Amino acid sequence: MQNITTPTVMLNWPVAQANIRRMVDKAKRHGLHLRPHFKTIQCHQIARYFKELGVHTCAVSSLSMAEYFASDGWDDITVAFPVNLREMETINDLAGKISLNLLIVNAKSAAFLNDKLESPVGIFIKIDVGAGRTGLLPEDEIGIESCLNEIEKAKNLVFMGFLTHAGHSYRARSKAEVLKVHEETTAVLRALKKKYRQRFPQLLLSPGDTPTCSLAENWDGIDEIRPGNFPFYDVMQVQIGSCEMKNIAVALACPIVAKHADRQEVIIYGGGVHLSKDRLLSEGQEMYGLPVFLKEHGWEMPEEGCVVKSLSQEHGIIHCTPSFFEKLEIGGLVGILPVHSCMMVDIAKSYLTTDGQVWEKM
Amino acid sequence: MQNITTPTVMLNWPVAQANIRRMVDKAKRHGLHLRPHFKTIQCHQIARYFKELGVHTCAVSSLSMAEYFASDGWDDITVAFPVNLREMETINDLAGKISLNLLIVNAKSAAFLNDKLESPVGIFIKIDVGAGRTGLLPEDEIGIESCLNEIEKAKNLVFMGFLTHAGHSYRARSKAEVLKVHEETTAVLRALKKKYRQRFPQLLLSPGDTPTCSLAENWDGIDEIRPGNFPFYDVMQVQIGSCEMKNIAVALACPIVAKHADRQEVIIYGGGVHLSKDRLLSEGQEMYGLPVFLKEHGWEMPEEGCVVKSLSQEHGIIHCTPSFFEKLEIGGLVGILPVHSCMMVDIAKSYLTTDGQVWEKM
Repeated sequence: MQNITTPTVMLNWPVAQANIRRMVDKAKRHGLHLRPHFKTIQCHQIARYFKELGVHTCAVSSLSMAEYFASDGWDDITVAFPVNLREMETINDLAGKISLNLLIVNAKSAAFLNDKLESPVGIFIKIDVGAGRTGLLPEDEIGIESCLNEIEKAKNLVFMGFLTHAGHSYRARSKAEVLKVHEETTAVLRALKKKYRQRFPQLLLSPGDTPTCSLAENWDGIDEIRPGNFPFYDVMQVQIGSCEMKNIAVALACPIVAKHADRQEVIIYGGGVHLSKDRLLSEGQEMYGLPVFLKEHGWEMPEEGCVVKSLSQEHGIIHCTPSFFEKLEIGGLVGILPVHSCMMVDIAKSYLTTDGQVWEKM
Repeated sequence: MQNITTPTVMLNWPVAQANIRRMVDKAKRHGLHLRPHFKTIQCHQIARYFKELGVHTCAVSSLSMAEYFASDGWDDITVAFPVNLREMETINDLAGKISLNLLIVNAKSAAFLNDKLESPVGIFIKIDVGAGRTGLLPEDEIGIESCLNEIEKAKNLVFMGFLTHAGHSYRARSKAEVLKVHEETTAVLRALKKKYRQRFPQLLLSPGDTPTCSLAENWDGIDEIRPGNFPFYDVMQVQIGSCEMKNIAVALACPIVAKHADRQEVIIYGGGVHLSKDRLLSEGQEMYGLPVFLKEHGWEMPEEGCVVKSLSQEHGIIHCTPSFFEKLEIGGLVGILPVHSCMMVDIAKSYLTTDGQVWEKM
């Protein structure tokens, strides 16, 4: 910690390991296939821990991420993002080496793939279960049918099933609200399975957001889950109710460069280019993270009344209580628990574990 | 353009050159020393164009950025960020090689520097002229005096003057509002000069935000300006009134991966990890960029009613008019004019110029 000179993502590895084990155990308990989404961790060392626990498949959000994990021996990867037809070269390269699953949200992409593919790939149809981002609407029978027809007549497309991301669970602010999203969205999936399973007996249902995967206990009819954020969690997940503050496994260590006693504010070297500008409302005010005292092998829990209130490119402003303010020193460090760990970690080039190891990232 | 497969920052170099020339000419016309802030461009090729126009000094926002530009021959650099006392090794290394200016906002940092510095550095005192981020308040005579005293008694600290960033000009939404900020903040600086110039006859006044530098014509008493954003501008600067849409010199080229006719929305491969999550309000709605048609050597102007309405990690959602929607194709590309070019460019590893060259970035 003494050697930290610039904003640095710290990883509390024992906390992350416990988060990972909890999800692996839960999947086992429910007979679910766990296909963790590695867009959050983006790191070989962390991914290898999943393998130690018996997890041998993963999801990623880009073909470059698929290449990164394939290069470390992951040979069954779902690119959980609508297929990018401009990357056929990478797709063919990967499909020739590993079991690759792709996502489609329209028949055009299936037809294009069929035309260009040189090896078989698995195909999931993305269903929009209410998040409103992308996917076919479950009631869009014509759209689903036209995708299925293209897949069936294609030589190199193997229909895998229906995939969803209930992103609207992120708008929930209690366990009850998350479970409501879960029940509604898994009911949609179960209805699709009922409708198509005679034609496609092997079809899988694959939902996968961290809030429902963390909280739900009813997984009837579901085959696979693809949560991503859970190894690290973050302040947003605490606000949703997916985890507790003590489960957050990453913090940004930031040098303190100025103190303003008149407004109880501390200026850190740590801005939007380090934390990302993802934000939350806390008591009606926007906030970009929670400051914590760093200690050997970890950090303290955040204190009431202390927040990162704004970010510019490299500056962050912490507004805090008088006692917190007193304890921070110019030239010292403070930790920031991120609003959204995926976005913060994506920017970083490596992790510094709380026991002093540097782990390279993608 | 045919070779673009993933989200790519495109640079319209003739537009950027014109923006740069305009600022260089304006500084000359007003007898101002131009010290462009390179946190926006972060690129040797672009910086060299300033040298061709006779600009030989720059500002940066981190010591690593100072090292990057020093490695290409820039030998007079101001780190326009409160000095980070944890980077003394880099400071001493740079101060031994180039003319380095640092910023202080408290006497403690000056004393610490004096203790650790091995070569002379220039010191600016940062004044908070209303942005409320950091800096000493202009009326804080005791604070300013204690900084000046530390500087005067230090062997290796040379007082350069007062530096400001009127960041509150970004809250302006018309030329008149920007000019009001400019008049108020430069008046504060002029008063400081008047007060201290007998004691420090060489003291400089250095303000430097893009809105006031783009729009103001009264620079009485000001010595130096440090705008950063102006080579590229962005949608935020158009909304402020600093420039016109045609002056924006960067766009993110994004593959189109899905179309949703029922809601006139197009899904792009291009998310918060490419554009950043900086946002603006447009007609009461948040927006994250403006979609444009790409063409040979540039792009068309944006169309009314078309916006990037939300971003997740890798997905962007464009909401658009029926005619715009029709012209976008799955597998094709669309350009996005960024809300905040500095943040978008910071994330990228290189630029693709609109005539096909790849320019590496820091």
